[in-house]
Amino acid sequence: MDDVLISSERLFQRLSEFEKIGALPGGGVCRLALSDEDKAGRDQVKAWMIELGMVVREDAIGNVVGRLEGQEPELAPVMMGSHIDTVATGGVLDGNLGVLAGLEVVQACLESGQKPRRGLEVCFFSNEEGSRFQPDMMGSLVYTGALSLDEALGKVDADGMSVRQELERLGLGGTHALPGLKPHAFVELHIEQGPLLENEGTTVGVVTAVQGISWHRLVLHGQSNHAGTAPMALRRDAGFVASQINVALRELVLEMGNEMVGTVGEFKIRPNLVNVVPNRVEMTIDLRSPVEATLSLTEDRFMATVEALCAAENVQLEREQLVRLEPVIFDATLVSLVETLAAARGLSHRRMVSGAGHDAQIFAAIAPACMIFVPSIGGISHNVQEATEAADLIAGCQLLSDVVLRLAR
Amino acid sequence: MDDVLISSERLFQRLSEFEKIGALPGGGVCRLALSDEDKAGRDQVKAWMIELGMVVREDAIGNVVGRLEGQEPELAPVMMGSHIDTVATGGVLDGNLGVLAGLEVVQACLESGQKPRRGLEVCFFSNEEGSRFQPDMMGSLVYTGALSLDEALGKVDADGMSVRQELERLGLGGTHALPGLKPHAFVELHIEQGPLLENEGTTVGVVTAVQGISWHRLVLHGQSNHAGTAPMALRRDAGFVASQINVALRELVLEMGNEMVGTVGEFKIRPNLVNVVPNRVEMTIDLRSPVEATLSLTEDRFMATVEALCAAENVQLEREQLVRLEPVIFDATLVSLVETLAAARGLSHRRMVSGAGHDAQIFAAIAPACMIFVPSIGGISHNVQEATEAADLIAGCQLLSDVVLRLAR
Repeated sequence: MDDVLISSERLFQRLSEFEKIGALPGGGVCRLALSDEDKAGRDQVKAWMIELGMVVREDAIGNVVGRLEGQEPELAPVMMGSHIDTVATGGVLDGNLGVLAGLEVVQACLESGQKPRRGLEVCFFSNEEGSRFQPDMMGSLVYTGALSLDEALGKVDADGMSVRQELERLGLGGTHALPGLKPHAFVELHIEQGPLLENEGTTVGVVTAVQGISWHRLVLHGQSNHAGTAPMALRRDAGFVASQINVALRELVLEMGNEMVGTVGEFKIRPNLVNVVPNRVEMTIDLRSPVEATLSLTEDRFMATVEALCAAENVQLEREQLVRLEPVIFDATLVSLVETLAAARGLSHRRMVSGAGHDAQIFAAIAPACMIFVPSIGGISHNVQEATEAADLIAGCQLLSDVVLRLAR
Repeated sequence: MDDVLISSERLFQRLSEFEKIGALPGGGVCRLALSDEDKAGRDQVKAWMIELGMVVREDAIGNVVGRLEGQEPELAPVMMGSHIDTVATGGVLDGNLGVLAGLEVVQACLESGQKPRRGLEVCFFSNEEGSRFQPDMMGSLVYTGALSLDEALGKVDADGMSVRQELERLGLGGTHALPGLKPHAFVELHIEQGPLLENEGTTVGVVTAVQGISWHRLVLHGQSNHAGTAPMALRRDAGFVASQINVALRELVLEMGNEMVGTVGEFKIRPNLVNVVPNRVEMTIDLRSPVEATLSLTEDRFMATVEALCAAENVQLEREQLVRLEPVIFDATLVSLVETLAAARGLSHRRMVSGAGHDAQIFAAIAPACMIFVPSIGGISHNVQEATEAADLIAGCQLLSDVVLRLAR
């Protein structure tokens, strides 16, 4: 096949159309999974797929795949994709870049008049973010058979609405078989969501692996008491212990090394009154490492510290593992191909590990998979200020096209 | 005057009637200031006052005073009182014990057939707790002229309802002059709300002083980011800094000494999502000490630590002082009188400092004031499990009667 050149104008046109869907005042978007805004985003992407002559299929969890047929329909297709749902105060690129760039790859291929041997598929998966329903990456987990459809449909949000109810309410979910078809390869373009590429002045991150993820919910039960009269030595202050846990987490994570990260994201305190010693805290712990042994060791050491801190203040501990994903290593041949083609375009590039979870890591269990990262300005993501330089978006989309069309030959 | 003996039966009857008003399922009460439950409690106490033949007056902030006239109406009366509002998950004794015991003192005096020279007044003050409207001790502050009526009426709760609106809605507030009449003396019976008396097996706490109180609200502004991709060294995690502040507060308070206490009671984090680094925390700091110099020094050292912690994580700090009350020393002659009369009844007693704020400390600015404490089981208060042994309640009520009638001679 000859060189296919993507159109930056069309890419930016679609991106700027799409950021209006669920737009927040002052910037950023909110398209929580299976919300009205998510539905509007889905309708827009499906309409674009149909405009491009793609065959659109949808499965019972709401994953959508658009297919442009190749010369040999019996061959497994090359898949590109990501997600279009966002966190509550999300940016305009996280997820949808990989989907809209996929549409541009298809359109550029069509306009070149060439027809690859393998079909090209562009897909988006339900509830990748996990902000509303857990687990995150729900759609790709169901697609690949790692999570049962029934279990996923039964998950409820904070208001008690289930995935099943919301799919029905929005008229979503199709009949396409689950688990889904295994692709020849899966390639996901995504923003880095961290500062590494920008800090180094590098255009392309060739993702070799995804960090393992461990999420826990801790509930601490202390005793409420009068803030003026309860002597310090007799307190069972759940808020204090939760704070100690947060401080201990940072210490431990720094001790374990550079690529390990840890976060207390949720922190709900009761009774939450200025003059009452808190009797209950519910908090989440997010731990990530690219090395399974490090992640396991950190979990063990952290939980031992948590238990000791609770015991010292006579606070009772409940704990629950919410998510546990081992680190994923991407296909070595695909990783080399991305490097080679980045070099062929003269793009600066470096191998790196993804700190965030992505649909591609779920696909790695059933097919060769890889990811292409482009820089995030200021390393900012999951934030309305999330942005990437135009030149980097163009480079990422062109590289996606080069990789996918090479694989589809 | 001859000895007047209180009736424990009547005291317990009124206490057990009163704990039904705003009762919570499973125990405890919720009579937040100027709520419907607070109104029901007010109506009950006023009805009891009228039954006892007391003249009831009410001022524009909703403070209620019932008066039993003495032999010499031109003399300033002896006041007993406290409050009947509670925290959201309050106990059945905090505040109302002092009010209902006052009614029993009046009834016992009436039934003894004796008439003191001075009038006896039983009062309850609006919004002592400060859980809904700040500042706490609002009613006694307005009664004594330390807070202007207009300022108090304009205070709003978390839903934007003002004190003025709620007084109007409930048909509360009378025309009695403000600031109110200066009493000859003010005596408040209250539960200790701490474990000291119980731990020592002592029946009566003779309160010599009330701790100074310093309340601050801190707002920390960091930067939200992806919990998996933001390197630890570049984070501006407002939740982490808030946790460090809580841990540093405990360390500092322990270093300053036994009678100093410090509490982080409120802790609101945003965006409060498992996989997002928190960008904002709003938290309160409650600091108390019986020694003004210690309290000031602790405030200064604490704020320097807060600023250093914020700077280290590049988090912006806003701070606001919500309440600042200097420690109050009670009238030495009254304190000695309480000791003498406790000894005369054969009650074990000890001098102590109150860790909580009370209406009596506000009255100390305009009249000789003192407080009598009885033990709290387990030291627990501001908690639905708050309780005191029956014998201690009887002893406290009898001592209140002895002190008040001696002062009213």
